Amino acid sequence: MSVSAAQIDVESLRDRFRRAAEAAAAAGVDALLVSPGSDLRYLLGADGESHERLTCLVLPAAGSAAEPALVVPKLEYPGYAGVPTDDLGVHVATWVDGEDPHRLVADLLKAGAPKSVAVADLMPALHTLALRDALPDARQSLAGPVLRELRMRKDAGEIEALRKAGAAIDRVHARMGEWLRPGRTEAEVGADIAAAIVAEGHTVAEFVIVGSGPNGASPHHGVSDRVIEKGDVVVVDIGGPVPEGYNSDSTRTYAVGVPGFDDVVGTYAVLQAAQQAAVDAAGPGVTAEAVDAAARDVIADAGFGEYFVHRTGHGIGLDVHEDPYIVSGNDLVLEVGMAFSVEPGIYLPGRWGARIEDIVVVTEEGAVRLNTRPHELAVLPS
Amino acid sequence: MSVSAAQIDVESLRDRFRRAAEAAAAAGVDALLVSPGSDLRYLLGADGESHERLTCLVLPAAGSAAEPALVVPKLEYPGYAGVPTDDLGVHVATWVDGEDPHRLVADLLKAGAPKSVAVADLMPALHTLALRDALPDARQSLAGPVLRELRMRKDAGEIEALRKAGAAIDRVHARMGEWLRPGRTEAEVGADIAAAIVAEGHTVAEFVIVGSGPNGASPHHGVSDRVIEKGDVVVVDIGGPVPEGYNSDSTRTYAVGVPGFDDVVGTYAVLQAAQQAAVDAAGPGVTAEAVDAAARDVIADAGFGEYFVHRTGHGIGLDVHEDPYIVSGNDLVLEVGMAFSVEPGIYLPGRWGARIEDIVVVTEEGAVRLNTRPHELAVLPS
Repeated sequence: MSVSAAQIDVESLRDRFRRAAEAAAAAGVDALLVSPGSDLRYLLGADGESHERLTCLVLPAAGSAAEPALVVPKLEYPGYAGVPTDDLGVHVATWVDGEDPHRLVADLLKAGAPKSVAVADLMPALHTLALRDALPDARQSLAGPVLRELRMRKDAGEIEALRKAGAAIDRVHARMGEWLRPGRTEAEVGADIAAAIVAEGHTVAEFVIVGSGPNGASPHHGVSDRVIEKGDVVVVDIGGPVPEGYNSDSTRTYAVGVPGFDDVVGTYAVLQAAQQAAVDAAGPGVTAEAVDAAARDVIADAGFGEYFVHRTGHGIGLDVHEDPYIVSGNDLVLEVGMAFSVEPGIYLPGRWGARIEDIVVVTEEGAVRLNTRPHELAVLPS
Repeated sequence: MSVSAAQIDVESLRDRFRRAAEAAAAAGVDALLVSPGSDLRYLLGADGESHERLTCLVLPAAGSAAEPALVVPKLEYPGYAGVPTDDLGVHVATWVDGEDPHRLVADLLKAGAPKSVAVADLMPALHTLALRDALPDARQSLAGPVLRELRMRKDAGEIEALRKAGAAIDRVHARMGEWLRPGRTEAEVGADIAAAIVAEGHTVAEFVIVGSGPNGASPHHGVSDRVIEKGDVVVVDIGGPVPEGYNSDSTRTYAVGVPGFDDVVGTYAVLQAAQQAAVDAAGPGVTAEAVDAAARDVIADAGFGEYFVHRTGHGIGLDVHEDPYIVSGNDLVLEVGMAFSVEPGIYLPGRWGARIEDIVVVTEEGAVRLNTRPHELAVLPS
């Protein structure tokens, strides 16, 4: 992981700081302690370099007497040159080997006499326990639940980055016929796709699923040495981050020549209708679980309920999986600016599987797709 | 990160389990709680798949009434098929979404009534705090200090894997003339090197430093868009893991044609002598800081002391940086089986820099290099 300052305007960052400080106060937390990861990138426009040495954004709750500060190893500080710390009112406190960065965090918070601090969900125990010892009077909780309230409501810049990611992964799907052919292994096809993911504008191919034939019926399959055959149905689920840090994630299902099972066309039509129903259902004021139900009902009504074995979707942004989760039991009410996947699937064990996945963003007019490749079963030359 | 079971024989794993349980007892810890990362890979021969859902090896200290167990999400368990849990006496406890895996860990430890547990250094706060709440009577400490005592003493299989990694990165250095030429950017050269690192047998190009001209004087430089010029001195520091999980890490310094500064040849000779002195000094019974001093004294005596701005080396194994650290103040006595880098450098700000790095392993006869490319300044065609 390397530091990289994204192009986020100062006003947006200042707004995120303000809202995070207010959310912390509302949660009864005296300060957020944010180590490298997507939470740090969200708040600062830059991520950290390593987990070994402590980098930590110290963000006191609204009303605290303490001031925001960035604790960072001196040798990693050049990587934050693009971060507008002055404009954000963030004091930079560098440290060198031999100094105690956890003590430094405690000193920076002293004015606020914290009784409760929230640490980043991914903070390594190495730092979590050292901060526990440096701040013995402060009960530790997780910062994730506080920050997810902000992160799940995307601003215009974030949606633009998601749109860019969606277009980039669509270009990869558009080229699938170059690689997906009988006689090649899933792993060979996957390697070509991974290279194209990068070539089309992602910084890395974060995940590549090529589930051919019976492997398509296993939603967690990656790639294997199985040789693709004429007549296979193939699930291709791919994505990764663009330079802004925001992720793509899109699935299309392909047939290599005429599908080898008679039930493919009819069953796939059910799946396509289910995916459309969920996108149609999504919009401001609708619950996450209602979107899940919209897809699930179509599939269940057609008799395939037991073959749709996962949630309908997940939020997406700086993380591939984040809130809001589109799942039964989640009564979160969707708002304008929320972005998530809509990806129902039908998996027939030992035979074949199919999934259709688009990222959508909630607007006043309903959910808008950021992936625009055709949803029909794409029959490739065999 | 994906699960991958390495080929480690059951006897070695059983021995590691026994020694870890004894080291835990000696440290006054009732159990080790090891989440995914190199500690888990060391103990199990397989790493975890994700940080989101808890995977945790529960390893009670020697003498505890509790039994070893592997807590793992049911959907990730197939990835552990190659782990000899039965032979190791490890109970496998799978869990599914909706169940509480942290409670499961607490239940598994109940027979031992733990008052003190050590969690993996990299365990995310997400799990550290949940385990704190599930085991309110157990004080948490770090497992790293317990396990490093084992991990820094490599067995024959581990040294063989390090030897393989060393040979693989040597093959990349041997091909440097294919890529390192005037008119190309550091980033272009770095991309070619990264591809070769994988092509020559690594699973990933973990790090690639191409520090040309003045950038070579910055030890933490990665790659940049600087165009390499005729006469540049270029520091190339590269490495990554082989499939067994063990890492390579080797630096050579190249000149693109005749060096553009008059002091390069003489100064480089000092560096070469310093690196040799440190390798000569290393051996069983010698302290880590004595090895550091051996290199540092040669450089200081020649008047370049202030330009050698980092430690002489670091241990290497499943992590690129691990114990033992070859640094002033570390009075650890080296033993047969310890492996570490010997990498002095001389950095002349704004002008040029040089570093020579080999991995060595301590044997009865002294330190043996695992990198065997020539140490002379390599002058490439310009």
